[in-house]
Amino acid sequence: MGPVRFGRLKRLLVGMPLPTAQSRHERLDRPTALAVFASDALSSVAYATEEILLVLALAGTIALSYSLPIAVAIAALIVIVVSSYRQTIGAYPQGGGAYIVTKDNLGTYPSLVAGSALLIDYVLTVAVSVAAGIAAVTSALPALFGYREALCVLAVVGIAVANLRGIRESGRLFAAPTYVFVVTLGALIAYGSLGAIFDFIPEKPYEAHPPGLEGVGLFLILRAFASGCAALTGVEAVSDGVPAFKPPEAHNARVVLAWLGVILVTLFLGITILAYDFGIVPKKDETVLSQLAWHVFGGGPLYFVIQAVTMLILLLAANTSFADFPRLSFFLARDRFIPRQFATQGDRLVFSNGITILSGLAILLLVVFGGDTHALIPLYAVGVFMSFTLSQSSMVRRWMRLRSGGWWWRAGINGVGAVVTGVVMLTIAVTKFTHGAWIVVLLIPTFVVMFLFIHRHYEAVAEQLSLDGLTPPPPIENTVLVLVGDLHRGVVRAIQYAQALSPQAKAVFVETDPELTRRLEEKWGKWGMGVPLIVLTSPYRSLLGPLVEYIDHLRAQGDNHVVTLVLPEFIPAKWWQAIMHNQTAFLIKGAMLFRRNVIVTDVPYHLKH
Amino acid sequence: MGPVRFGRLKRLLVGMPLPTAQSRHERLDRPTALAVFASDALSSVAYATEEILLVLALAGTIALSYSLPIAVAIAALIVIVVSSYRQTIGAYPQGGGAYIVTKDNLGTYPSLVAGSALLIDYVLTVAVSVAAGIAAVTSALPALFGYREALCVLAVVGIAVANLRGIRESGRLFAAPTYVFVVTLGALIAYGSLGAIFDFIPEKPYEAHPPGLEGVGLFLILRAFASGCAALTGVEAVSDGVPAFKPPEAHNARVVLAWLGVILVTLFLGITILAYDFGIVPKKDETVLSQLAWHVFGGGPLYFVIQAVTMLILLLAANTSFADFPRLSFFLARDRFIPRQFATQGDRLVFSNGITILSGLAILLLVVFGGDTHALIPLYAVGVFMSFTLSQSSMVRRWMRLRSGGWWWRAGINGVGAVVTGVVMLTIAVTKFTHGAWIVVLLIPTFVVMFLFIHRHYEAVAEQLSLDGLTPPPPIENTVLVLVGDLHRGVVRAIQYAQALSPQAKAVFVETDPELTRRLEEKWGKWGMGVPLIVLTSPYRSLLGPLVEYIDHLRAQGDNHVVTLVLPEFIPAKWWQAIMHNQTAFLIKGAMLFRRNVIVTDVPYHLKH
Repeated sequence: MGPVRFGRLKRLLVGMPLPTAQSRHERLDRPTALAVFASDALSSVAYATEEILLVLALAGTIALSYSLPIAVAIAALIVIVVSSYRQTIGAYPQGGGAYIVTKDNLGTYPSLVAGSALLIDYVLTVAVSVAAGIAAVTSALPALFGYREALCVLAVVGIAVANLRGIRESGRLFAAPTYVFVVTLGALIAYGSLGAIFDFIPEKPYEAHPPGLEGVGLFLILRAFASGCAALTGVEAVSDGVPAFKPPEAHNARVVLAWLGVILVTLFLGITILAYDFGIVPKKDETVLSQLAWHVFGGGPLYFVIQAVTMLILLLAANTSFADFPRLSFFLARDRFIPRQFATQGDRLVFSNGITILSGLAILLLVVFGGDTHALIPLYAVGVFMSFTLSQSSMVRRWMRLRSGGWWWRAGINGVGAVVTGVVMLTIAVTKFTHGAWIVVLLIPTFVVMFLFIHRHYEAVAEQLSLDGLTPPPPIENTVLVLVGDLHRGVVRAIQYAQALSPQAKAVFVETDPELTRRLEEKWGKWGMGVPLIVLTSPYRSLLGPLVEYIDHLRAQGDNHVVTLVLPEFIPAKWWQAIMHNQTAFLIKGAMLFRRNVIVTDVPYHLKH
Repeated sequence: MGPVRFGRLKRLLVGMPLPTAQSRHERLDRPTALAVFASDALSSVAYATEEILLVLALAGTIALSYSLPIAVAIAALIVIVVSSYRQTIGAYPQGGGAYIVTKDNLGTYPSLVAGSALLIDYVLTVAVSVAAGIAAVTSALPALFGYREALCVLAVVGIAVANLRGIRESGRLFAAPTYVFVVTLGALIAYGSLGAIFDFIPEKPYEAHPPGLEGVGLFLILRAFASGCAALTGVEAVSDGVPAFKPPEAHNARVVLAWLGVILVTLFLGITILAYDFGIVPKKDETVLSQLAWHVFGGGPLYFVIQAVTMLILLLAANTSFADFPRLSFFLARDRFIPRQFATQGDRLVFSNGITILSGLAILLLVVFGGDTHALIPLYAVGVFMSFTLSQSSMVRRWMRLRSGGWWWRAGINGVGAVVTGVVMLTIAVTKFTHGAWIVVLLIPTFVVMFLFIHRHYEAVAEQLSLDGLTPPPPIENTVLVLVGDLHRGVVRAIQYAQALSPQAKAVFVETDPELTRRLEEKWGKWGMGVPLIVLTSPYRSLLGPLVEYIDHLRAQGDNHVVTLVLPEFIPAKWWQAIMHNQTAFLIKGAMLFRRNVIVTDVPYHLKH
């Protein structure tokens, strides 16, 4: 039997079910939390510098040196956003995702925009991170370059399975790589800087651009900046996930976010400056980070460690979305904006439906865009900055409403954050619009409309099912009919069952051939067990027509009257044997499905072989 | 709602249902019967000559003149088979298909071989005839040559729809083309012969082959003969379809079969001789018949009439299988060798399932073999000659058993038929084995094994369901449970229904969160209507686990005890709204399906919007 076998496979992949009581223990200490929630932001240093250089390279090598001021601007942006989000954590220790915070302060519609933007960006985080992670692999092992699409899909599937097992195991599994990444990249930057200073690594800085913008253009510089802003994605993950921290949750989360900010700025600036100093130019089949590591360490084991750990942290980043997407889905489902199935925890205490949908969409994106990071980047970050802006505007509103101690400087910090991220969002949407951002700009309102549509449906259902104003109705009168075709053990059992339901039960036979009626009536004395037999004629040999007509006639007795149609059905020993039997029961159920006050009951008779 | 819309489309295509009483009037007079049942055999003259020439051409043009002796041999074969089958019609006025006749005289196993061979050949008749019919079109209109596959599929679909409408309309629809075909081909042969005799059409006979077989080989000549034997396919259709004739059925059928033999031999020999005399050589994109008609009539209107009517009669030939395949399926299903659905007449008095399967398989063959007649021919005729042999051996056995008047010469005629067709069958199987006949040689026994397997299943089911030896069992004891989750109008209705089924009904609630239990218990006083509430705890948040456990506990009371599980279910106003709701009922039914003595009953609550 199918379901049982599937069940076994599921257990093997995702483990045995966990009791609800275990829920509270699935919490993360600070170092593990950094690994799980900060990896998204940290990992983006693996591609952010490259994306800046790729845009600048469109104007020729002379434009590359603009990477330095752009990187500084982005570093400043990181500081602003981190400061702003530390306040959100303090105010929302129960988890301050943009959806919750916006809903709380700006109301439903803005919160749906935030929710829509975030869902889209979680999918993109998976796609971009996995694509970049596989790029780290194919940079070190060029023979695999042709298989990157398949490798990307494989990686997403792997992460999805790990997540279906549950969050603590994920934490344990992914903790080490983050730290190895931070340490080895720190070592790369330190050793590279020493090499540049003491001249044991050859330098070849980008040629300086003459003052002014000739040959480059402000739009291109803004586009390069917009691409580099991918470095900020994931900064919000910490504040989304506060309840997953060990107590005191808020405090631990703020500390982790501060660590994250410091490490992120250091790594991003370090890599960008070294790339400048060593004259690294983007290539189609090798990442900038790979070129940089090769330049500093040569082809030694440290180079391969960096590539391996870069891949791992990027997969970890993808994993962040596997914590956040289902969590946000849960909130949206709880508020009835998406189907309620997303609010159900699976037997491993994870939101299995969210995990499955997320991985499906990410795989779709990876296949459509050929597993290419650069092709996906223009879609990325619009949603994140949209949610940053909404989230921080909400905080401003909150401080102004509460007027608690220090509200004015707190509102100031969040206000700066809101304005800056709002401007950045517009910059990204405009400069990358034709390269793919238009897809996201269209999708965000589409999702909002869908949310509202689903919400209206649930409201309508709730209203129709509500007990308000209803008084307990009078008892139901039930007419029991048993449908008889041939006469065999299964039918005898059904007749008995109908009798058990009601002593007034009747049997119904649809006549297609009078000879069959005669034979049935002959045997009815012995096997009818006193149940009266009603024969319906059928000139067109249809079973359904006369039956439906008769039942409709009975139903006409009023809404308090119910017809129960008992169907004898034998269940073959093997499921595939069903194709050798008429599917009459199925047809009858279909015909009755939209008829009020008719209840169809199968009485199964199980065959042994 | 889907089913209703489909129903309307079906009515438009296949017409309104017909009452059973109309069945007897769906009979064919002689001329119409010739059109319906003889078209298969007659139409094969459109390709039989060409298939002979194609094989001979492999040995060069010097071998082509062998077509004459081969055609004479095939003509003799036609006479033998027709004589043999005229006797079958006399002996089996109720319809003497090879399956029936073989079963009656040689027993089950040989009859299954015949049945298997025939089913396969009916499918091939459709595929070959349609491919050849489309070849007639593309010969006249070369621009369509590239679309022949699509045209073939379209033709099969068209014939299938016509047949789903019912047999008399088919007869009327297809009567004229057969006669136009016979008359125009007769005219072609007459005018061509006159032209050759009085030298107003240029002659260019194939060069004569020197005595002996040098450069040709006996095997090749036998293969050419085997290919030409396609001319005989369809001769048996008349004896299969005797009950469709107007009374006196047998007499009319024998007369029609005699006409058929005379016309078939005349047309086949005429075309082969003219092709020889005018030196027609097969071409890839124009049929031999098309070349011949063009040579005799030039590009005038008569040429196009011949091409058009050739196409029509070939489609008519395909149509023959649409009468025979469902009829044989009915016999096999009635005898429980194939699924019983094939024994059910649809509401237009036709066997819709047989028609659908036949057209599906024919389309598959046409697509796999690219709509090419020559590629399909090697698969063809093995099955037909297999059934000829079995059918005539059966007749020999019958005469020897009955010893009625003239039994010895009757047995002699059928004996010659059996031996000759048996030898031909082996010749076809051997000479065309590697070109595709192997597929059929493998399929025939495969089908026989499948038939036996299905038969065994039905026997087992019948035995298990049989009332023999059963005494009317004691009444069933029924425990009624209603599953309660939330409390709403649908649930209240289900509780009431459970009460109507049994005053001892109990409500069951699976606790995943004690808070929800508390809230439910608060409201139970008002809405429970006196039904006791049983709370089952669920440490793993699974609804199914504790429920199944409880039900299994109740089931343990013995085979005379049944548990009825009542499920409240609300039915959305639109079917697609179902995706927004949990499919719990579906899961529960799945879990209960293979459990004995559990009956699951949905109580639907219909939403209005």
